[in-house]
Amino acid sequence: MKEINIGILGCGEIGTGVAKILLEKNDLLNKRTGTKLNLKYISDLDIKRKRDVNFDKGMLISDSEKIINDPEINIIVELIGGETIAKEFIIKSLKNGKHVVTANKALLSTHGNELIEIAGENQVDLAFEASTAGCIPIIKTMKESHVGDNIKSISAILNGTCNYILTKISKQGFSFEQALKTAQEKGFAEADPTLDIEGIDTAHKLAILNAIAHGIDFNLKDIHVEGISRITPLDIQFADEFGFDIKLLAISKFHHDYIEARVHPTMIPLSHPLSNVEGSMNAVVIYGDATGQTMLYGHGAGMMPTASAVINDIADISRTLLVASRKRMPILGFPEKNIKKAVILPIKNLRTRYYLRCFAQDNPGVLSKIAGILGNEDISIESVHQKGQKLNGSVPVVMVTHMAKEENMLKAINKISKLNSIPEEPYIIRIEDNNER
Amino acid sequence: MKEINIGILGCGEIGTGVAKILLEKNDLLNKRTGTKLNLKYISDLDIKRKRDVNFDKGMLISDSEKIINDPEINIIVELIGGETIAKEFIIKSLKNGKHVVTANKALLSTHGNELIEIAGENQVDLAFEASTAGCIPIIKTMKESHVGDNIKSISAILNGTCNYILTKISKQGFSFEQALKTAQEKGFAEADPTLDIEGIDTAHKLAILNAIAHGIDFNLKDIHVEGISRITPLDIQFADEFGFDIKLLAISKFHHDYIEARVHPTMIPLSHPLSNVEGSMNAVVIYGDATGQTMLYGHGAGMMPTASAVINDIADISRTLLVASRKRMPILGFPEKNIKKAVILPIKNLRTRYYLRCFAQDNPGVLSKIAGILGNEDISIESVHQKGQKLNGSVPVVMVTHMAKEENMLKAINKISKLNSIPEEPYIIRIEDNNER
Repeated sequence: MKEINIGILGCGEIGTGVAKILLEKNDLLNKRTGTKLNLKYISDLDIKRKRDVNFDKGMLISDSEKIINDPEINIIVELIGGETIAKEFIIKSLKNGKHVVTANKALLSTHGNELIEIAGENQVDLAFEASTAGCIPIIKTMKESHVGDNIKSISAILNGTCNYILTKISKQGFSFEQALKTAQEKGFAEADPTLDIEGIDTAHKLAILNAIAHGIDFNLKDIHVEGISRITPLDIQFADEFGFDIKLLAISKFHHDYIEARVHPTMIPLSHPLSNVEGSMNAVVIYGDATGQTMLYGHGAGMMPTASAVINDIADISRTLLVASRKRMPILGFPEKNIKKAVILPIKNLRTRYYLRCFAQDNPGVLSKIAGILGNEDISIESVHQKGQKLNGSVPVVMVTHMAKEENMLKAINKISKLNSIPEEPYIIRIEDNNER
Repeated sequence: MKEINIGILGCGEIGTGVAKILLEKNDLLNKRTGTKLNLKYISDLDIKRKRDVNFDKGMLISDSEKIINDPEINIIVELIGGETIAKEFIIKSLKNGKHVVTANKALLSTHGNELIEIAGENQVDLAFEASTAGCIPIIKTMKESHVGDNIKSISAILNGTCNYILTKISKQGFSFEQALKTAQEKGFAEADPTLDIEGIDTAHKLAILNAIAHGIDFNLKDIHVEGISRITPLDIQFADEFGFDIKLLAISKFHHDYIEARVHPTMIPLSHPLSNVEGSMNAVVIYGDATGQTMLYGHGAGMMPTASAVINDIADISRTLLVASRKRMPILGFPEKNIKKAVILPIKNLRTRYYLRCFAQDNPGVLSKIAGILGNEDISIESVHQKGQKLNGSVPVVMVTHMAKEENMLKAINKISKLNSIPEEPYIIRIEDNNER
């Protein structure tokens, strides 16, 4: 039986998890793949820290270059993270003819095009199931299980931190700050939560899903990104009254020659499958012209779920190495020569429905002024809601609009902000109420 | 570019759908796979019937043998169904060195072991994504995305007809008969609904999922199967009061040396992810020791969703054909030499919680008699519920038990049935209230 030799770069949480499975479940891996998946080395700058796995003597080393340059190693697993040294190591590995498995969404979404080119030149694989939605097999599913399906849209909860916080606000009435603090205490949020809270991590993952949905290049910079820090319990109360939930969604809609791709807090009906996704769980809804609506749901982070996704990639590459002399699946599911440029619709051209919340000083005429501004910008109002309670001398006024153009909505917000009786900038939440797409 | 030639046996609904994708979306298939997937022939006894697809002249033929024996054809797609002629054609195709794709769950679950042996002897593939849960990529996911994961349990809604009927009863208060009639009118149930309603179709699919979860042989005959025809709106009302939903579930729990595998109406908490699966949708929850809980959800039937799954199998086989000289993935995800015998726990040895519903003639002492019988069989009662309304002179009495042994429960039911004041056999519904497993 041919052995497959594996080297891991980075022995943090996920690296440790991958090593654990390779060492402690080698029998199971062997039974499934019919080959031995052999962990030869794992590197980390800190080799002294105690980890929950028993390495053979000499297995944990500090010199990553030794792994990258070992001619016996077939597969390199990059779990260092970040865009500097990780990028350098991946490029060296690819150029050395190693297949690479990574969970590095930040790197892929910003430098993925370059990495794919290098992998292509060197006829090696670059696999990244663990980069998006943890153990949910979304990469494999989109590449291999929608072959005859035109994917029309993706809507997804891809960040457990944000979903945990929103669940705490909506189900337990926490403020944003309380919910964030609890998330940090429970290990669901980092000490510096910016990447998560501001939607950036979600955008990284959406750039990856876009690329494999239609074989287009990674385009992070054109994705519109908004985080969840302006959502208040009041917005969630209003949403609830309308039969809606508020989730941080990654949304892509694939049109003939452009893509709507955006990350922002979104109101969805309680009947939407993503509305039932609570706490730190992730889920992806795909709508295809042949399959209709499907959803995949599971743990989007955590040591063992993420390590499990890395192992699947290792097994996949190994299975091909055992029978074929060349790559079987293109990296994005489409042969590199078919990869197209991603054309993302500027957010100002988006048309959607809006929830608009202002605080208005309770003087007569303010409602008609707001309505007038909206009307002038060609935005028609479906309903108006006002709550009695005063907050700092203002009452909350909420309007739900019919379909309107984002550009017009931004102009309207700007004008509303300048009204004397509006003490702070109005806040909008986009509404997606078509459950199917 | 090498072409892959495909022959389809059976031009019913799914066969027509597969042909439609191969003919009308050939560009998309070509862009994804980098090869031409060429439909050469499709056979059906009735070649005159109008179908919603334009075949080239001579493509639709009545002679299946011509397809099976055509040396140019690489992949045979069997969509005839049933266990007689379909089996014969598949065996001939495998022996002719053709890879076979099928959606035939009845055949696989009863004769799958024989077919796998023949495929192995002839070094060809046998793929069956479309056999279970339509376009939900459950077969690929279990084979390829839980490689380092010990699958501990599966619970699934695999029959859209039953789920549609139960949804109608629970959400709209229909009787079983009304719900079945509506399902038939809407095309969600066959004229003879026995296979669906009695849980047999669900059991076929569970036998398939068991086989790929742990690399065991197909074992349909030992799966305990109960249908949904004895469920009444009253049971659903009680369930609702307890915070439960009633679903026809396929359940497998994998223990060290045996499997619990059973199909029956099941009470699950409203917070269980399967509780939100409504109408004709399917979903599978997998619990693994590394991944925790994941769920896949989508259309379990219908022309295009099912055809889409068939296309994925065709693409998968084609991709391997283009680069490898031999099979890449074993048929059950485990090399044939590692396949074990399935040992299924006899249902009498099951331990679970029960909902027990009787109708009792309203005379004093009956409740204590029932409780006494249960106590004698070592079954302890968690709660007793009685509704005031009389049905044919009897009142419904419901008991919810703690964990009890099935064998004891059956003995108790038998004794309760013989009480004078119990006019009809009590009905049990098993309860699964651990959301995680």
